[in-house]
Amino acid sequence: MTQTAAVIGGGVIGGGWAARFALMGWDVQVFDPDPEAERKIGEVMAGAARALPMLYEAPMPRRGALRFCATPEEAVTGADYIQESVPERLELKQKVYAAIQAVAPDAVLASSTSGFKPSELQAGAVRPGQIVVAHPFNPVYLLPLVELVPGAAEPGVVERARSVLTGIGMFPLHVRAEIDAHIADRFLEAVWREALWLVKDGIATTEEIDNAIRYGFGLRWAQMGLFETYRVAGGEAGMRHFMAQFGPALQWPWTRLMDVPEFTDDLVELIAGQSDAQSGHLSIRALERLRDNNLVAILRALKGQNAAAGKLILDHDATLRRPLEDSLPLVTVRRIVPVDWTDVNGHMNEGRYGQVFSDASEELMFHVGADRDYIAAGNSYFTVETTIRYLAETLAGEEIEVETRVTLGEGKKLRLWHEMKRAADGTVLATCDQFMLHVSLETRRSCPPLAHVQDAVEQLARAHADG
Amino acid sequence: MTQTAAVIGGGVIGGGWAARFALMGWDVQVFDPDPEAERKIGEVMAGAARALPMLYEAPMPRRGALRFCATPEEAVTGADYIQESVPERLELKQKVYAAIQAVAPDAVLASSTSGFKPSELQAGAVRPGQIVVAHPFNPVYLLPLVELVPGAAEPGVVERARSVLTGIGMFPLHVRAEIDAHIADRFLEAVWREALWLVKDGIATTEEIDNAIRYGFGLRWAQMGLFETYRVAGGEAGMRHFMAQFGPALQWPWTRLMDVPEFTDDLVELIAGQSDAQSGHLSIRALERLRDNNLVAILRALKGQNAAAGKLILDHDATLRRPLEDSLPLVTVRRIVPVDWTDVNGHMNEGRYGQVFSDASEELMFHVGADRDYIAAGNSYFTVETTIRYLAETLAGEEIEVETRVTLGEGKKLRLWHEMKRAADGTVLATCDQFMLHVSLETRRSCPPLAHVQDAVEQLARAHADG
Repeated sequence: MTQTAAVIGGGVIGGGWAARFALMGWDVQVFDPDPEAERKIGEVMAGAARALPMLYEAPMPRRGALRFCATPEEAVTGADYIQESVPERLELKQKVYAAIQAVAPDAVLASSTSGFKPSELQAGAVRPGQIVVAHPFNPVYLLPLVELVPGAAEPGVVERARSVLTGIGMFPLHVRAEIDAHIADRFLEAVWREALWLVKDGIATTEEIDNAIRYGFGLRWAQMGLFETYRVAGGEAGMRHFMAQFGPALQWPWTRLMDVPEFTDDLVELIAGQSDAQSGHLSIRALERLRDNNLVAILRALKGQNAAAGKLILDHDATLRRPLEDSLPLVTVRRIVPVDWTDVNGHMNEGRYGQVFSDASEELMFHVGADRDYIAAGNSYFTVETTIRYLAETLAGEEIEVETRVTLGEGKKLRLWHEMKRAADGTVLATCDQFMLHVSLETRRSCPPLAHVQDAVEQLARAHADG
Repeated sequence: MTQTAAVIGGGVIGGGWAARFALMGWDVQVFDPDPEAERKIGEVMAGAARALPMLYEAPMPRRGALRFCATPEEAVTGADYIQESVPERLELKQKVYAAIQAVAPDAVLASSTSGFKPSELQAGAVRPGQIVVAHPFNPVYLLPLVELVPGAAEPGVVERARSVLTGIGMFPLHVRAEIDAHIADRFLEAVWREALWLVKDGIATTEEIDNAIRYGFGLRWAQMGLFETYRVAGGEAGMRHFMAQFGPALQWPWTRLMDVPEFTDDLVELIAGQSDAQSGHLSIRALERLRDNNLVAILRALKGQNAAAGKLILDHDATLRRPLEDSLPLVTVRRIVPVDWTDVNGHMNEGRYGQVFSDASEELMFHVGADRDYIAAGNSYFTVETTIRYLAETLAGEEIEVETRVTLGEGKKLRLWHEMKRAADGTVLATCDQFMLHVSLETRRSCPPLAHVQDAVEQLARAHADG
């Protein structure tokens, strides 16, 4: 049966919650007094509906219904779960809770607050144990983290909240002790304070600071956090060694934020012991390997988007390209199989064979003058049919080469024969018979190539027929 | 002509430099007094040689030679660029510089130091202007960031350093004013101090803190930094609105690190103005779209590695899967085309068509009982040949379905006919004729499937022949 979530308070956070619940199959009842709420949440929903399903290979649940309600009481009627994201004013939140709790005494009542501790929210409520903090991160529909802070919430409520949040694809981080700003925002606040100093003191601009983050430690933190990263950095000697090396810096003016804990043996043991419990089942070499695989995959993902550090690599990649040598056959690809190309069988996924041959034909296109400028001017070749024969397995890290022959080059028709080989021993791993048509990118219909490309294609076809 | 880099001081950082230079085609001369240096750098090089080339589609330059030298003087002889990564003791660094500068007066002399400002390194040197700080981030062979801090370095030296670092694929961030710990390490130190407090006070363990980072803001920071992220979070009202909302928090105990800048209108204007200069050419909606594309691509990359936030999504994905309905033909795939599947022509790359059909055949395998347990027990189907016909373009965000028929199911042979359709209007986008063989994963040779799989395949083949 479809479940119902109530979202009290729209905006960027409330809208993100509404979108995530609806896309995960929940009916959603929204209350927000803003007359623009429906339009604003509609925009968040449009972005979420585009992005969130892209994360999944499985079919998405049927999308739940989104209904806008005139009062908080109406919104929570029949709801299994209530997420409150009203402005950060305690008396406002408490007033809303009083109205809600009277109508929906059995639903989980979760607050998105970053500024209040659960004890503050629970104080004076008719049923304090119904209330729990579930603090998400923007964009709520993509980032899995949600800080679940129970305070005096009833265990049953906390357990139901955890189950609901996990069910909609989130990671509820149980925050055992209540503390101002919970956990993650404390780091964000520390970084924010340091960043304000750097800008104010004229050391760095906002753009320089963003680059210092996204080209460096930001990439590390997307996959390991602070402590596991440093455990790896410590090398074989591990966490105790790392701490011994960097402990003294606590006394140095490395940030403007100078209220520091005392660096005692007890503190080192506490942290090293926790780090052992967290990561001790893996050797440093194994952790390094995981880190590097993750970084390669993230950097390649960003490269595919031509964004952030991926743009740097794409630009650098262009400087490494050389025109194809005039060999017979042409060597169109020479590369390493990256870790993001393997599948459940442990070898290169068959789709990636197709991509390698697609890259080979793109190199050949560039070679005959159908390059980026040619494509930008509205001309290109599209593949009509490929037949790929899979002859041997290929593993991540192996060097491969593709040899390409033009077997037909007449008018708008282009047919290629590719052989993919393992560079180490020349074993043929796969072959591809590829038939392409020249197209106008304006009409999306086939048409003859421009004369210089046509000449180059025909010349290659003759040479390869003789060869 | 091959260029030569001298690496003075091995270890994790020096080894990372040596590997990056060598893999980018530079000859490298290393000095490190540690008798274990060659083994240690060899291990870093092995990791780097595996990972770094995976970032590139272009062929890598021919790898440079790595030579170990007995003295710093020998290592810098003939070097165009010198990278010093000796232990962080000022008198040691200055002693090394004195020896080096006498032998290599014209090379760029860059230091990996995080703890010293350039003025401290330059003080007392025979040619202070030869020395510059080039502070990298671990792993040096994958992360592009390097902080370039000139202090009193000569402009020509700084320019050459920038050119060399860009040439080996790094992003030299020009740090205009010298300051303790440069820029990025100030943030790392602030976060480290806050993290030590949280562990010491028993609020969170190292693992909980790592999860608070890598499932949340770490993902944001891998692609946008602090300020651009907050600009987007501010919504249409932008940076000034965001700052007005979070300014007051500077006075709240949201971190233990309480020495904060005064929150004045001037500071707001300074930061909002810089943010406009950085990102003002894009609307908030456009920035949101970029952010979401990047997050989807990063999360999918991590999903491919079954790591960090990607593991959460993979696990959640499994809960969304349902057995195939017993329709004729079978609907084996129903999904959205994600942003990481498009190519330079703006449509789904032909390799991804192959991947969709590969996924379709995997679903069919599961359907006939050749599931993960079956594969883990050493049996699987491998694809021998596919013929794909490309009938229409497909764009990111479109919903697609694959209908699959078993056209042959005899002994170890399995032949499938897939039709990929646009869900919105039923247009056939591509077809695939796929021939597979059952294999033993132990011998990597073909063999008959187990009886229950064989039965299911034959039954489907009969049903599909009739249908």
